[in-house]
Amino acid sequence: MKGLLIVVSGPSGTGKGTVCDVLLKETKNLAYSISATTRQPRAGEVDGKNYYFLTKDAFEEKIRENAFLEYANVYGNYYGTPLGHIEDRRNRGEDILLEIDTQGALNIMERCPDGVFIFLIPPSLQELERRIRGRGTESQDSLEKRLSSAEQEIRIGKKYQYVVVNDDISNAVHQIQAILLAEHCRNEKEYKIEEVLKK
Amino acid sequence: MKGLLIVVSGPSGTGKGTVCDVLLKETKNLAYSISATTRQPRAGEVDGKNYYFLTKDAFEEKIRENAFLEYANVYGNYYGTPLGHIEDRRNRGEDILLEIDTQGALNIMERCPDGVFIFLIPPSLQELERRIRGRGTESQDSLEKRLSSAEQEIRIGKKYQYVVVNDDISNAVHQIQAILLAEHCRNEKEYKIEEVLKK
Repeated sequence: MKGLLIVVSGPSGTGKGTVCDVLLKETKNLAYSISATTRQPRAGEVDGKNYYFLTKDAFEEKIRENAFLEYANVYGNYYGTPLGHIEDRRNRGEDILLEIDTQGALNIMERCPDGVFIFLIPPSLQELERRIRGRGTESQDSLEKRLSSAEQEIRIGKKYQYVVVNDDISNAVHQIQAILLAEHCRNEKEYKIEEVLKK
Repeated sequence: MKGLLIVVSGPSGTGKGTVCDVLLKETKNLAYSISATTRQPRAGEVDGKNYYFLTKDAFEEKIRENAFLEYANVYGNYYGTPLGHIEDRRNRGEDILLEIDTQGALNIMERCPDGVFIFLIPPSLQELERRIRGRGTESQDSLEKRLSSAEQEIRIGKKYQYVVVNDDISNAVHQIQAILLAEHCRNEKEYKIEEVLKK
C-alpha cells in the first residue's frame, strides 16, 4: 500500500517542530521528507540525509520542471520540497512527514489532494505570545507583527482536515498518531477487503 | 460541541458485539444508542435503559412520523433506532455508538450523512467460518448460506468511511478509538479555532 503524506503546519510559535520531532521518534514507519536547498551545508550535514544540496542552476532547472511540491527563496537561498522523492518513498509504503509553514501547506493542498493536512494551534493567543517572547529573539515591533499575523494564520486552519491544539506535547502527538491510524483505516479499506476475500 | 454518531457494522460472525462492548467500557463519553422494540421486556430489562418498550400501535405511529433512523420487523416484533433520542444525546455532547447489521447501516448512511461509518471485517473467510461454526448454532446448509452472504456483505464495506480488521479484539478497539479521536479533530476544527481566538 502507498504510504501517507502527512503535512503538519501552524503559525510560528505553536511548537510544530518539537511536536513533529517527538512524533517521528514515537511512530513506526514515519520519516521526514527531505528538502532541497541551495544554501551551503553546515558542519556535519549530509547530502541526501539532512538536505539535498543543489546548485542554484540545478534548483532553478527543477523549478522549471515543476519538480517541487512547493519552494521558497529565503534571504537569497532556495528551499524546496521535491515531489519525486516523496512519491518514491510513499510508493515503497513509507508515511512521509512534512513540517511546513501555513502558506507552503496551502500550495501543497492544491498539488497533493491525497495528503493529510493537520493544523496545529496554540491553546490561546496569550500562550502563543508567551512562547514567542520566551524565545527572546523578537523586538516588540516584530512581536506585535507576528501575533497579528498569527491570528490571520489561525483562521486559515479551517481549510485543513484536522485541527490539533498543542496544549501539551504528548497530547498533541497522541492525537496526530490517532489521525495517522484512522487515515490508514480510511485509505486502505479497499485493499483490506480484497485481502480478506482472497483468504 | 455536538457528539459523534459512530456506526459499527459488519457481517455476522465478525465479532462486532464483543468489540463494541469492550470499546464502550474503555472509552470516555461514549454510550450505546437505545433501540425501541415491541417485544416483551425480559426479566431485569428496564424501559429507557435496555430498550424503549413500545406497543405495536405506538411503534407504527412513530414509523409514520419518520421517527426511526431505521427499523425492522424480526419474527413479528419491531426493532428500531429512534432518531430523536440519538440527536438529543449528541446535542448534549455525548458520542453515540450504534452496532447494527450491514443493511441497517446503509439506510442510516442516507439519513445521517454526518455519521462515522466503520466496517469491521474478519481477518479471513476461513476465520469467519471457524467463528460461525464455533457457535454451533448453524446447520451445514445455513452455514453455507451465511458464508456466501458474508462475501457479498464484505464487499459492501467499500461504501463505509473506515474498514477495521478484527484480527484481535484489543487491536480493533484501539483502531476504533483512534478513529473517534481523529473524527473529533476533524469535526471540531472550527470550534477549536474560534475558542483559541477568544483567549
